[in-house]
Amino acid sequence: MKKASSLSELGFDANGASSGFFRPVADDAGLCTPTSHRRRLTKVSVIGAGNVGMAIAQTILTRDLADEIALVDALPDKLRGEMLDLQHAAAFLPRTRLVSDTDIAVTRGSDLAIVTAGARQIPGETRLNLLQRNVALFRKIVPALAEHSPDAILLIVSNPVDVLTYVAWKLSGFPVNRVIGSGTNLDSSRFRFLLAEHLDVNAQDVQAYMVGEHGDSSVAIWSTVSVAGMPVLKSLQESHSSFDEEALEGIRRAVVNSAYEVISLKGYTSWAIGYSVANLVSSILRDQRRIHPVSVLATGFHGIADDHEVFLSLPARLGRGGVLGVADMELTEEEASRLRSSAKTLWENSQLLGL
Amino acid sequence: MKKASSLSELGFDANGASSGFFRPVADDAGLCTPTSHRRRLTKVSVIGAGNVGMAIAQTILTRDLADEIALVDALPDKLRGEMLDLQHAAAFLPRTRLVSDTDIAVTRGSDLAIVTAGARQIPGETRLNLLQRNVALFRKIVPALAEHSPDAILLIVSNPVDVLTYVAWKLSGFPVNRVIGSGTNLDSSRFRFLLAEHLDVNAQDVQAYMVGEHGDSSVAIWSTVSVAGMPVLKSLQESHSSFDEEALEGIRRAVVNSAYEVISLKGYTSWAIGYSVANLVSSILRDQRRIHPVSVLATGFHGIADDHEVFLSLPARLGRGGVLGVADMELTEEEASRLRSSAKTLWENSQLLGL
Amino acid sequence: MKKASSLSELGFDANGASSGFFRPVADDAGLCTPTSHRRRLTKVSVIGAGNVGMAIAQTILTRDLADEIALVDALPDKLRGEMLDLQHAAAFLPRTRLVSDTDIAVTRGSDLAIVTAGARQIPGETRLNLLQRNVALFRKIVPALAEHSPDAILLIVSNPVDVLTYVAWKLSGFPVNRVIGSGTNLDSSRFRFLLAEHLDVNAQDVQAYMVGEHGDSSVAIWSTVSVAGMPVLKSLQESHSSFDEEALEGIRRAVVNSAYEVISLKGYTSWAIGYSVANLVSSILRDQRRIHPVSVLATGFHGIADDHEVFLSLPARLGRGGVLGVADMELTEEEASRLRSSAKTLWENSQLLGL
Amino acid sequence: MKKASSLSELGFDANGASSGFFRPVADDAGLCTPTSHRRRLTKVSVIGAGNVGMAIAQTILTRDLADEIALVDALPDKLRGEMLDLQHAAAFLPRTRLVSDTDIAVTRGSDLAIVTAGARQIPGETRLNLLQRNVALFRKIVPALAEHSPDAILLIVSNPVDVLTYVAWKLSGFPVNRVIGSGTNLDSSRFRFLLAEHLDVNAQDVQAYMVGEHGDSSVAIWSTVSVAGMPVLKSLQESHSSFDEEALEGIRRAVVNSAYEVISLKGYTSWAIGYSVANLVSSILRDQRRIHPVSVLATGFHGIADDHEVFLSLPARLGRGGVLGVADMELTEEEASRLRSSAKTLWENSQLLGL
Repeated sequence: MKKASSLSELGFDANGASSGFFRPVADDAGLCTPTSHRRRLTKVSVIGAGNVGMAIAQTILTRDLADEIALVDALPDKLRGEMLDLQHAAAFLPRTRLVSDTDIAVTRGSDLAIVTAGARQIPGETRLNLLQRNVALFRKIVPALAEHSPDAILLIVSNPVDVLTYVAWKLSGFPVNRVIGSGTNLDSSRFRFLLAEHLDVNAQDVQAYMVGEHGDSSVAIWSTVSVAGMPVLKSLQESHSSFDEEALEGIRRAVVNSAYEVISLKGYTSWAIGYSVANLVSSILRDQRRIHPVSVLATGFHGIADDHEVFLSLPARLGRGGVLGVADMELTEEEASRLRSSAKTLWENSQLLGL
Repeated sequence: MKKASSLSELGFDANGASSGFFRPVADDAGLCTPTSHRRRLTKVSVIGAGNVGMAIAQTILTRDLADEIALVDALPDKLRGEMLDLQHAAAFLPRTRLVSDTDIAVTRGSDLAIVTAGARQIPGETRLNLLQRNVALFRKIVPALAEHSPDAILLIVSNPVDVLTYVAWKLSGFPVNRVIGSGTNLDSSRFRFLLAEHLDVNAQDVQAYMVGEHGDSSVAIWSTVSVAGMPVLKSLQESHSSFDEEALEGIRRAVVNSAYEVISLKGYTSWAIGYSVANLVSSILRDQRRIHPVSVLATGFHGIADDHEVFLSLPARLGRGGVLGVADMELTEEEASRLRSSAKTLWENSQLLGL
Repeated sequence: MKKASSLSELGFDANGASSGFFRPVADDAGLCTPTSHRRRLTKVSVIGAGNVGMAIAQTILTRDLADEIALVDALPDKLRGEMLDLQHAAAFLPRTRLVSDTDIAVTRGSDLAIVTAGARQIPGETRLNLLQRNVALFRKIVPALAEHSPDAILLIVSNPVDVLTYVAWKLSGFPVNRVIGSGTNLDSSRFRFLLAEHLDVNAQDVQAYMVGEHGDSSVAIWSTVSVAGMPVLKSLQESHSSFDEEALEGIRRAVVNSAYEVISLKGYTSWAIGYSVANLVSSILRDQRRIHPVSVLATGFHGIADDHEVFLSLPARLGRGGVLGVADMELTEEEASRLRSSAKTLWENSQLLGL
Repeated sequence: MKKASSLSELGFDANGASSGFFRPVADDAGLCTPTSHRRRLTKVSVIGAGNVGMAIAQTILTRDLADEIALVDALPDKLRGEMLDLQHAAAFLPRTRLVSDTDIAVTRGSDLAIVTAGARQIPGETRLNLLQRNVALFRKIVPALAEHSPDAILLIVSNPVDVLTYVAWKLSGFPVNRVIGSGTNLDSSRFRFLLAEHLDVNAQDVQAYMVGEHGDSSVAIWSTVSVAGMPVLKSLQESHSSFDEEALEGIRRAVVNSAYEVISLKGYTSWAIGYSVANLVSSILRDQRRIHPVSVLATGFHGIADDHEVFLSLPARLGRGGVLGVADMELTEEEASRLRSSAKTLWENSQLLGL
């Protein structure tokens, strides 16, 4: 079977054909060299071309957020198939350069590198063992990314996201504002969706944050939940005589469980994490300075000890420089205590990684 | 595990909560009833929630092309998982109502119904046997779709697309302008991508059509291939002394093979067909009257016999009424002859289906 | 000079030319008639093709919010010039049908009619006299709009917007949920812009409402002003020892004055009101159910007397049915008192109009 | 009246307030400085805030094509009013930084500078005198632009566009691929609109070029006019027995006159030129490599003498480097002869300018 990825492989000379159509303008010497003008183009790399990585790459492509997308995966066939499948839509999309390689060098010059690669749990494996295998994987990926794109922002999606964002920060040597974990940005969208459905409003009019550790011990900040600036908690409590702490915890758990539910039903999550990460990409690359709950260095916030270097999700303002600031929300003592408890556990775990 | 799909399932009364926020304006009797205003909302149904169906649904959602999307699949868990995965992105998207059910009644009132469901070939099965199993499937789907959405446009994506579009037309009883096969719309994009890469231009500046039967015997209309109105064939021939019929056939085959290549590499195609169909959806629902090579009733075109009711891809102008017209392109005798030959085979095959 | 608005005027037969390209598919009788499929297309009318009307129409066009836009103005030359100027951009935009006429019949079948027409104050004229001239103008426009589009939603932009929305409601005979004034939607955006610039966040992360009467006596709801769910007022007060009532009133006045400032500098406002109204159009036509501060029948809210039929801006949830509900915000007694005072004045004024 | 452009002017301390919300992450020293991350943001400047300049700026803003827009005009009040009017829409738009000044230094670091400023004809003034006044204006603008943004692309919209693009090239000292005139990009859209209306197809499916001198002596390239790759001329001629050279010239003239018609009806053109230029901006800044008929150095094309440095519109491929190539279309001898004649006149005129 003749491979169809380019006419050159069929023996056609690209330069020859092209010159039949186009000539440079006369002042040839003055043409911008590719090097100089490419410096201003926006390049995003996605490491890991699985369901999550591809949902992210495809949503970035549909939303026209980058001039160039580089895909990296260890499986060359899968990788090439995914790239061709995206390229074949060229007639339906603004032009975006798509490249892929098993070699991380293809990411050279990225503005943003998104890591979705991760080891899968082997039956019977301990969490720590899994984590250590992921750290081993990151040792191969992160320093290479940092070398090829020393000015990039790193966006970590692989799980457990909070520890691995810390790992990426350590391995990259990057300043802390340029290493971000996708954290609870998606959890917060699920939270807003549940509340919006319940109140029959648009989810974009619901302000609601899940913060802390991504997963079972995340913290819902009920005091700031509002619709169009009106506090929701008060309204919920007025309409339900029995609306107590237990009920709120039930809702928080429902949000956490909604991720597990999708996994149990379809085997993995993809679309929502794709939209969530593309949303972060847009805020970062277009310098939107919007506020997102993402995993950032939480040392010193809400009483987290100054010698505990841990990443946890907090509302952060994101822009072209990465994390531009972290909101110093008022928490109840109970909420702050849960954050500190997560921080302590994460710090203890990360001490075992030998970084 | 508590299920998270709504707070009502956790015991909260939606109306009670909502009324804490909102009241109707005073003149209550005059409020539009849901029935009346919903008539003007745009609903798209996708039958089959596999890789192709979901890539289509997700691209329609990202592009904000519909007010409501209904998903139908025979596997209830997979279906519910896909719907929840899309819903969880609510905070990142304009509001779109998402519903799903194994019962086709959920599609009621669709403006457009897209069929991606299809049986898979069993090793050793003949093509005819596979086709007959797909016809049996369509007997369950298409009349039900037509009953619930008598004014809808049917867009068939399942393969073999040309025969199955004919089957859908017969089974629906719909006028022929409201039954369309995705046909060679994607093949044409692949064709344009290959040419655009070769000539280093934007694929949207390349006019190039693959027509006829989707698949191995498709026809590339070289005479109309142009870049910005300039004929490409002449330029290619001038730049390659050896650019002969065989070379052109090599390019056509490369386009056809590019689909097989993706399948052999990643196991299926999804992104490109998702973009291709979303592109058709946009032209139809937004009444764009753009020209797409899609599978339409080809009787009487290019010498296809008047008693052969066959669907083949030809450049068609699409709008809110479906197929608004079919371009009567000038073909070479060789090209027209290949179309007639495809038509004859398709007609003979469809005679065996007992419709 | 040959007029260029169509080739038909140059003597070319459109049908003849078109039929050279396209033929119907064979089953001709079944083609959707234009009548039937047009029912589902979205039509927006803009009455008044001045700076405000045209900024609105152009933003709706750029945002691809309608399938057809009808423009109406009393000045035929200006009107035709504006329509042609938009039409000439056809190659750069999705296809949208543009029509214009001095006769309001051109709006027939609108889903949404936006009224920007209004008399200008004559030097020395009293406010009441100006208002009466505007009522006379609305007597010509509104009943004709209602007759040609009995299911439309009316969106009033002309000033004084609160009284004229009331007038349009009375003259149209429409249910109250289908008559909306642009009200303080733009004032609220100006409020958010000022706060966002001050706090260096994205204005879309600021929740802040101006409500009540559009103009000098509007009310800023400080208690609900928040950034990402965090109350702003408290933060402002902590950072400014002197942040008192007077300071807040200074900010409110600055918002109100910012409209006058634009008028004094460039002679009129156009872009911001264009974006503001297009934003409402999107929420209504795409059934977004987002919350906007717009002018609605305020009777019974915040203690406004049950026999006072007045329109004032309150946070309303907008969708395809128009006003789906009005938020029953908690106000301070001072805020509610100002609303009641505006309501009383508006009611007394409207009593003089003889509707 | 209190001025409302910022709260700082009301005495509020921005840093103080902001710090109430946000803190930097701990590793403060590593924060990207504004200088370093701003290098990657996209800045567009518009010189001249009249009807044309503002329609361009507003369309760029609506389309989200730039991270920063700088406006320059000689009239400070008008300029500030226009900027505030755009800024007030912040809540309805993605965040874009807007700045304005009468001093061209505000354009510093632009990626693209669009010049719409131009002198107006004084009754009785000769064309040459008007041109000389415009050259005097460009002497003030262009070298300053080039100094503040040495890597920018210049896009000239002021008329007579072909001569002034030449002037801008000479005064800037820029390589020729970075100086572009808007030329016949809009004329070509008008041409496509007329043909699309006549053939009832989407204007984006019509390939048609007006080239040469912008204005009365522009050249319509009939041989390349096609719909979906099918030549239009042949179809038109078959459907009109009398479709001769005179008829084609009538259509060309209708296109040219359509600009004059808009001016005679509404006093100026704005929307269409706004969309046309935003379309060029998109192709350039997003490196789309699309083909547009724009004014480029035409020396050596179609027999234009090698010592005649003239700018004329030819189909050019545009990308982040500016003009990436010019299509060497096949023209009839008549068409080429008209181009050479325009070139000769332009060259002679430009010799009188003393550059």
